Amino acid sequence: MYELARRKGDETTVVEVGDARIGEGFTVIAGPCAIEDELQMETVARGVLAAGAVLLRGGAYKPRTSPYSFQGLGDRGVELIAAVSRRHAIPAVVEALSTDQLPLLAQNVGMIQIGARSMQNFVLIAAAARTGLPILLKRGPAATLDEVLYAAEYALLEGNPNVVLCERGVRGFDDQTRNLFDLAGALRLKELTHLPVIVDPSHATGRRSLIAPLVAASAAAGLDGAMIEVHPEPARSRSDAEQAIDLNDFAQLMARIGLAPPL
Amino acid sequence: MYELARRKGDETTVVEVGDARIGEGFTVIAGPCAIEDELQMETVARGVLAAGAVLLRGGAYKPRTSPYSFQGLGDRGVELIAAVSRRHAIPAVVEALSTDQLPLLAQNVGMIQIGARSMQNFVLIAAAARTGLPILLKRGPAATLDEVLYAAEYALLEGNPNVVLCERGVRGFDDQTRNLFDLAGALRLKELTHLPVIVDPSHATGRRSLIAPLVAASAAAGLDGAMIEVHPEPARSRSDAEQAIDLNDFAQLMARIGLAPPL
Amino acid sequence: MYELARRKGDETTVVEVGDARIGEGFTVIAGPCAIEDELQMETVARGVLAAGAVLLRGGAYKPRTSPYSFQGLGDRGVELIAAVSRRHAIPAVVEALSTDQLPLLAQNVGMIQIGARSMQNFVLIAAAARTGLPILLKRGPAATLDEVLYAAEYALLEGNPNVVLCERGVRGFDDQTRNLFDLAGALRLKELTHLPVIVDPSHATGRRSLIAPLVAASAAAGLDGAMIEVHPEPARSRSDAEQAIDLNDFAQLMARIGLAPPL
Amino acid sequence: MYELARRKGDETTVVEVGDARIGEGFTVIAGPCAIEDELQMETVARGVLAAGAVLLRGGAYKPRTSPYSFQGLGDRGVELIAAVSRRHAIPAVVEALSTDQLPLLAQNVGMIQIGARSMQNFVLIAAAARTGLPILLKRGPAATLDEVLYAAEYALLEGNPNVVLCERGVRGFDDQTRNLFDLAGALRLKELTHLPVIVDPSHATGRRSLIAPLVAASAAAGLDGAMIEVHPEPARSRSDAEQAIDLNDFAQLMARIGLAPPL
Repeated sequence: MYELARRKGDETTVVEVGDARIGEGFTVIAGPCAIEDELQMETVARGVLAAGAVLLRGGAYKPRTSPYSFQGLGDRGVELIAAVSRRHAIPAVVEALSTDQLPLLAQNVGMIQIGARSMQNFVLIAAAARTGLPILLKRGPAATLDEVLYAAEYALLEGNPNVVLCERGVRGFDDQTRNLFDLAGALRLKELTHLPVIVDPSHATGRRSLIAPLVAASAAAGLDGAMIEVHPEPARSRSDAEQAIDLNDFAQLMARIGLAPPL
Repeated sequence: MYELARRKGDETTVVEVGDARIGEGFTVIAGPCAIEDELQMETVARGVLAAGAVLLRGGAYKPRTSPYSFQGLGDRGVELIAAVSRRHAIPAVVEALSTDQLPLLAQNVGMIQIGARSMQNFVLIAAAARTGLPILLKRGPAATLDEVLYAAEYALLEGNPNVVLCERGVRGFDDQTRNLFDLAGALRLKELTHLPVIVDPSHATGRRSLIAPLVAASAAAGLDGAMIEVHPEPARSRSDAEQAIDLNDFAQLMARIGLAPPL
Repeated sequence: MYELARRKGDETTVVEVGDARIGEGFTVIAGPCAIEDELQMETVARGVLAAGAVLLRGGAYKPRTSPYSFQGLGDRGVELIAAVSRRHAIPAVVEALSTDQLPLLAQNVGMIQIGARSMQNFVLIAAAARTGLPILLKRGPAATLDEVLYAAEYALLEGNPNVVLCERGVRGFDDQTRNLFDLAGALRLKELTHLPVIVDPSHATGRRSLIAPLVAASAAAGLDGAMIEVHPEPARSRSDAEQAIDLNDFAQLMARIGLAPPL
Repeated sequence: MYELARRKGDETTVVEVGDARIGEGFTVIAGPCAIEDELQMETVARGVLAAGAVLLRGGAYKPRTSPYSFQGLGDRGVELIAAVSRRHAIPAVVEALSTDQLPLLAQNVGMIQIGARSMQNFVLIAAAARTGLPILLKRGPAATLDEVLYAAEYALLEGNPNVVLCERGVRGFDDQTRNLFDLAGALRLKELTHLPVIVDPSHATGRRSLIAPLVAASAAAGLDGAMIEVHPEPARSRSDAEQAIDLNDFAQLMARIGLAPPL
């Protein structure tokens, strides 16, 4: 059994990333699927910060299904998001694909993401945990809740207690949505563990129109936050264009869930 | 293509069942999985009505996986729920399993349910539609949204426009929840059709503790209502005991979503 | 527990349909998805009989996902297949969708099929069993093996021991095949029950090119038979054209599995 | 599109591993889930070789769902299987979990396995391909066939043409089998690619009794081989005990598919 990840009684864990406290209230992480250039990141960072987001996401190393798709800017992407992150004092969340990317990430980002495709890359999870940075661990598309928690245990066993879990859809049979968003599973996960549980409706559904209602639903249900793909011009996004929302829609979404900052 | 079920523009359909108007605001249908006796039904009807429910559910003919499970009270169950329904002026929603049950239902209930196991029983759907009563059509556990809408089309083609669709979970791979509640699918369904779409988190999850948060989530996301299993003493329920909530929990749930009637 | 369907020790049941003995050797049922006209049925019957099939399938009442698709010839289809069946002394297997179709079927066919969409239509299963005819019960696309066996139990409890189970694919996530053919599930099913278990690779895969290898696989694995869609001119089939094979391919398939009759 | 993996016309690729030629006839890879000690490996190697296997599998680095399960012998396991492999001139197939394991593997084994959990670890796949050794790439439990082929493309793009694909079950909904063995998917995969496709019924089903019939089925269907878990004493296996077969059963299986060597 996952002894460290398992909830005993009512305890819950709050994971701090800079000033953000994941596990208290509803935390919103926003930003583009892929880091593309400085203007894009600067525009997104200003916009999402103004709308109430407290963490900035952006992919530098992209695990793309096809080797012919844009693979991300790599190390240069990390440097790009780091500069913007420091300028605006909003911590960055960036995915690691392999252990050799960890040193650069450890110096430049606030939180390391382990993506759905890497959820059972236990070597990577343990190494990421050893950096001491908080870990955002995404559920794989075929992972049971027990498997998610065992994966988290690999991080916790390294002595790093700061793990946040993220539901981003399991494999479904109807291509009306890219994956099947398992809200009930995310709620059940919170019953099983003391770790915070957030959602990623962008990857879960792949449909721009469903993001806001699903974030509202997740907040109403009592989950701990959401990671949302935001792009200044979604139609020009180099990755996952159909699921990103623009800054206006993001601001409206934040108002809908009562997280828009006071004027 | 499902021409009658398909949404064209912004139109939405409101389905009236007695005074209830499904498709306006958030409508709550509540009651036990199975009708057991008069005391049970009387207690439930009073309780859910006082808490703000506008329709009363109860199963008379139960499609049980095992022939050795309680199969429902049959015709006597219909008479029981009809008496309670009339006494309290709350329309009843009862499932039909075969066409020969339709005449008795047509005289006694406000809405006929077509269960998940019957979602592609097109003979039954068409016959139920011909009674003129509103139809509650539940999504089958392996049905795509297109298949749900084609099934609805079988009812609409009979000239009965009053069809409500209900998400009740699709088959998932993790037995932490009985089925996989497809909230994003329900939201996408509303984009595809003008018919109202409600949810049944009781059957979708099979877990009492998840009902209230999922109803709150569905309301926040903008769906049209929920069907909730309520039993005076869930532990003594003759069917699906682990997923029913009691009257106190139901009243709290209704308050949580702002539907408790004023004192 | 399904007491009647459950295997105890090594016993196996042989279901007789005319001269065919399902449960001994490998039995092949062949014919078109839908009965279209007399010439079609006559051509198919001659062809599949010459190639070694012992039962003739053909749909008269078609449970089509869309109400706008061809719904079958109905009663006239039953009469058509019955005439051909008698002329060539090959029993017919026809699906029933509702109880009022059973009397005509009982007089004209050798075996009543309960389709995947009706696998939990327990009213229909019990009524079909009461005709005394052997029942071919297809697994639903989201049904567990336990659920299949409980459904069979509804038939066995009527005193009709002649039930054959059929794997025809479960809902999968990759549209490369129409459904996900669960060969291992079919083999496991045989361990759980004494009833014969056959396969329907035509509906399971929806791909003509996969039928022959899957039938060969099922025979090599020790299953009890296969139901195969055969049409004189698959391209002109009014239903499921892409999954039917023609008479030449059928003859080659029968030779491949060693079932072609001696010249 | 996966240009390198895609089949054009009738071409097929034969992958050579020592004297074994995968893609010609039916190739059997056998051995324990985990390398445990020298006696175990020596016994298995002798036994499977005598029964007709041409490649020896054994896990040194085990990607275990739980961090509390046996994680394999690591580098010492590689040395153990290498010694046995050289003594009996049977090439070893060993899984790599991370890039830093590749140099040792490259010097000691005949083929590097990329496991199901690593199917989208593109960094690892490319690095493994650059060793020049043949690659055995297992399908992930939620992977479509396109995704498998794109993953293979990552290896082929490194200039290594020797990639073998392996079906080992996708996530299903019925725990009667550990996963859902997708035989039709494996056959369809062969239509899409020129690469050899083999099966792993041990991991696909997790049931000893189903291994032999599924291997027989796969051979009859025309696939290119099977990887089979064999252990001298399955009950004492330190990993996946319920799915390994013993040497006697393995010899019978090889006789059943006509691959037992002449006496």
